Amino acid sequence: MDRYEQVIELAKRRGFLWNSFELYGGTAGFYDYGPLGSTLKRRIEQIWRQLYVIQEGFMEIETPTIGIEDIFVASGHVGGFSDPLCECEECGEAFRADHLVENVTEIADALSNEEVDRLIEDNDVVCPECGGILGKAHEFNLMFKTAIGPGSGRAGYLRPETAQGMFVNFQRLSRYYREKLPFGVTQIGKSYRNEISPRQGVIRLREFTQAEAEIFVDPGNKDHPNFRKFADDILNLYSEEGQQRRTVEKIALKDAVDSGIIAHEFLAYHIGLTNHFLQRVGITADKLRFRQHMKDEMAHYAIDCWDAEIKTERFGWVEVVGIADRTDYDLNAHAKMSNTELAVYREYDEPKMIEQFVVKPDMGKLGPLFKGRSKAVAEVLRSMSRDALDVEEITINIEGEEFIVPSDIITYSQETVKVSGETIIPHVIEPSYGIDRILYSVMEHAFGEEMVPAKEDDEIDANEETRTVLKFRGEIAPVQVAVLPLLTKNELIGPATGIMNALREKGILVSYDASGTIGRRYRRNDEIGTPYSITIDFETLEDNTVTIRDRNSMHQVRTSIENIEEVISDLIYKNRDFETTGIRIE
Amino acid sequence: MDRYEQVIELAKRRGFLWNSFELYGGTAGFYDYGPLGSTLKRRIEQIWRQLYVIQEGFMEIETPTIGIEDIFVASGHVGGFSDPLCECEECGEAFRADHLVENVTEIADALSNEEVDRLIEDNDVVCPECGGILGKAHEFNLMFKTAIGPGSGRAGYLRPETAQGMFVNFQRLSRYYREKLPFGVTQIGKSYRNEISPRQGVIRLREFTQAEAEIFVDPGNKDHPNFRKFADDILNLYSEEGQQRRTVEKIALKDAVDSGIIAHEFLAYHIGLTNHFLQRVGITADKLRFRQHMKDEMAHYAIDCWDAEIKTERFGWVEVVGIADRTDYDLNAHAKMSNTELAVYREYDEPKMIEQFVVKPDMGKLGPLFKGRSKAVAEVLRSMSRDALDVEEITINIEGEEFIVPSDIITYSQETVKVSGETIIPHVIEPSYGIDRILYSVMEHAFGEEMVPAKEDDEIDANEETRTVLKFRGEIAPVQVAVLPLLTKNELIGPATGIMNALREKGILVSYDASGTIGRRYRRNDEIGTPYSITIDFETLEDNTVTIRDRNSMHQVRTSIENIEEVISDLIYKNRDFETTGIRIE
Repeated sequence: MDRYEQVIELAKRRGFLWNSFELYGGTAGFYDYGPLGSTLKRRIEQIWRQLYVIQEGFMEIETPTIGIEDIFVASGHVGGFSDPLCECEECGEAFRADHLVENVTEIADALSNEEVDRLIEDNDVVCPECGGILGKAHEFNLMFKTAIGPGSGRAGYLRPETAQGMFVNFQRLSRYYREKLPFGVTQIGKSYRNEISPRQGVIRLREFTQAEAEIFVDPGNKDHPNFRKFADDILNLYSEEGQQRRTVEKIALKDAVDSGIIAHEFLAYHIGLTNHFLQRVGITADKLRFRQHMKDEMAHYAIDCWDAEIKTERFGWVEVVGIADRTDYDLNAHAKMSNTELAVYREYDEPKMIEQFVVKPDMGKLGPLFKGRSKAVAEVLRSMSRDALDVEEITINIEGEEFIVPSDIITYSQETVKVSGETIIPHVIEPSYGIDRILYSVMEHAFGEEMVPAKEDDEIDANEETRTVLKFRGEIAPVQVAVLPLLTKNELIGPATGIMNALREKGILVSYDASGTIGRRYRRNDEIGTPYSITIDFETLEDNTVTIRDRNSMHQVRTSIENIEEVISDLIYKNRDFETTGIRIE
Repeated sequence: MDRYEQVIELAKRRGFLWNSFELYGGTAGFYDYGPLGSTLKRRIEQIWRQLYVIQEGFMEIETPTIGIEDIFVASGHVGGFSDPLCECEECGEAFRADHLVENVTEIADALSNEEVDRLIEDNDVVCPECGGILGKAHEFNLMFKTAIGPGSGRAGYLRPETAQGMFVNFQRLSRYYREKLPFGVTQIGKSYRNEISPRQGVIRLREFTQAEAEIFVDPGNKDHPNFRKFADDILNLYSEEGQQRRTVEKIALKDAVDSGIIAHEFLAYHIGLTNHFLQRVGITADKLRFRQHMKDEMAHYAIDCWDAEIKTERFGWVEVVGIADRTDYDLNAHAKMSNTELAVYREYDEPKMIEQFVVKPDMGKLGPLFKGRSKAVAEVLRSMSRDALDVEEITINIEGEEFIVPSDIITYSQETVKVSGETIIPHVIEPSYGIDRILYSVMEHAFGEEMVPAKEDDEIDANEETRTVLKFRGEIAPVQVAVLPLLTKNELIGPATGIMNALREKGILVSYDASGTIGRRYRRNDEIGTPYSITIDFETLEDNTVTIRDRNSMHQVRTSIENIEEVISDLIYKNRDFETTGIRIE
């Protein structure tokens, strides 16, 4: 078993992750979150909310997972969100065309469909399933399609990203924030990608959870007021230039901005925030790097884009977050498609006097000449430059129709006008998180196998055994404390229940486990990553003390029952040192 | 404007609910949750989790919104989840067939498609859009359909309920709970229903959020250990018998169980829990009733089913929760479809000696007679009764093939055997919540318009004006406290920010609003349901006191800044009396 298999085996057995539809044989690209997995996922999402929604103040919205066609035509997904597909002409099996030629070329993912076809022919590549002849490669759109309403109903698509639901609400949002830039909005929810044949288990899902923020900023000012917060943080940066040398460098964010590696402070701030988030949920620092998109892989409209990548044993470096400056691309695309201005108006502190070239068509003369079209003609004239107007006859074109305007029916001049504000199309900074991949990575980085004394609760027997442990940070553990009465006797159940309730009231996730030896219960809790266990025994009845065990060190202390919920809360949320919480039991 | 329009107008304007895809003209059956709506929704879901997941201990899982066909064949949705559809033969517009004949019959929703066709013909009903001739009524399946993977990909459906994702995980769940009945599991997530032509705004959505619990219970014991918790609660019950008399009765749950109105304690407990939840999120008690399903509307397999109904001004009584005893129907359906035993094994405390009729076929004689089929024949013989075996020749039928067995090659007898446990197919109790309808109802019940002094902050002017107010309970309000510095001066911003941060650290939702007069800020906060406002003024700088204003009474008190977060927390979560929190300002 490699590490992935070990993690997934544990995840299945203990209720973190289950193959979906297992009862009916399952389907690739779908996973269920079991009781512990679902709790872990909510903990991770909760920390994301704490940072983005509460701390940054980017309000969360919730838009449908089904979208109408217009949205995805504007966003480019109807036209360009596809993978190359090749079907076997004999058995009908479908394959990613680029995967079929991976063995005969090193640049499989950079080929055109025609080039793939040629490689298949030249190298006699056949169907991996049946050896049959493969058809031509063609593009397969990765959106799940459906129909809204009956019969000739509207086309609908399951959204490929949560982002579009925020862009199409730009006007509502900008009013909510009283048009003051920068403002941000977030969404956590399901997105979909109808993979041709997903092969990477929980890393490549057809239905997955994204957490995205769209931050609308002033294109003229991409400094960040709180940049100092992360400016000195040193990150593993794998810049475009570094990738050419195959070198990841440790660089402070402020140096990366100063030297022009990262485009600007606002992007650097959000790289810093992502770095903080990922480490806070338990990603190991040296298995985390930020890779800059190469010029040829970055979308043409983007200014700069960085992926947070996490190292996993089976899949290597996996992209889990993208942080991009998408400029005004998205707002422009939707503005054009919907014929609506998507911009904010900013009033100047004081009106400005601006030199302006002003064109004045003589409407009295234009009218008779162009009748119903004279208004449209005048509008075009007003937008023209001095050079274009400085001719005998001005030829203009409106929706394919040509109009010839004699130059003597317009006048123009350079004038000073009072302007009290301007219209700005904001740029978008977008951090986009794949929650499922992060969750899996957190499990893999927390996973360990260690040799420990066979019976931890029995000091005499010194044999060793292997313990499996998930070293989750306390804040994200799906069970934060296990309450373990030594025996199922009423006199112990009483205080155990009392402690459980006190902890729950404090908002701590508690499990109550009364079956099996204490040693076995410790193992069970190590395996699901419970950071602390509290054992209630007969001494408890005498002096109101309990044993707390620390999962990582396996050390135990004896401490008073009083304020135990404060002690545990401090251990989990305030990094309190375990050894100070009571008298160490050797 | 009726009340619905008033609520929706406010909801749109202040960022609770927005028509989805408005930028592209919108589509019926989809709504967005804006910043405040999304927060309100999460508060409601959070209270649901507190009750069902934490208090009841029903662990939450998360399964895909896309499901494969087998699941929905087993559940009956492929066959029977449909509405009657009628299309205009001229303009192609689609209508719910039963809605078309609502004006000519009172039992539109109980008619067969043939009866609808006849009514349309007899009454010359034409297309409401174009006056054209209507086609025949036929069933339209309400699941959104899609394809998983390319080309001949598997059929996939957007789930019509979250429930099936829990049923198909029964084996995993039962192992998680170590096969101990009762155990429960919950899921909160999106479900879909491709309505033919939704006409009721936010009440009838094509994409909506459900919160469902599936509780697996011992069919032989439907008492509830904690029934006393709700036993004395008096609810508005609209029983089957009451509906015949058109009388809603106020009955204590224990009386309803004792008199047989509610089938058993377990169901009654969950009706009580639903009642508690709905009132806790702010549903008015006298606009809430529980309606029993009539025999002819209840699914044939169900033992008893009650809907929580909420009264709304436009739509009358709206079903928001269903609480049903679904027996072993779902587990049996999936067991049959998947050919898998879905049951728990319960070991008896002591093995039981049981009288059993035992059939012993003579395999030595069966073998030569039936060759490869002899094992199957023996199996059938073992399941037969004494009467059936007590004949000369036993005729049995296996998959259409007939076998004739001479009676002298079997023996049988009554024997006493030791049985150490039994296999039980649990029954399912299912509370199923529609979160969106609850959210709308909470807004409607909280909505009010009141005459108040025109300038609340100015005692001299006694003119009156109307204030719009959402009287949300503090626990669910999307903004719980507004912090209002009297003026935007640095000396006031300092303490205001301090108070804001202290409140946020305590987990309270705070908004900071510094623009406009205090009176206007109060109005703005009334409108979004902020229960308390704290005003920081120049007196604050002198004596460390602030003004707290109570939304409902509009009373104001002056109180110390110290521990203000405790005071506010107690007001919100512990029903502390407002008047005791400081010195009343008249």
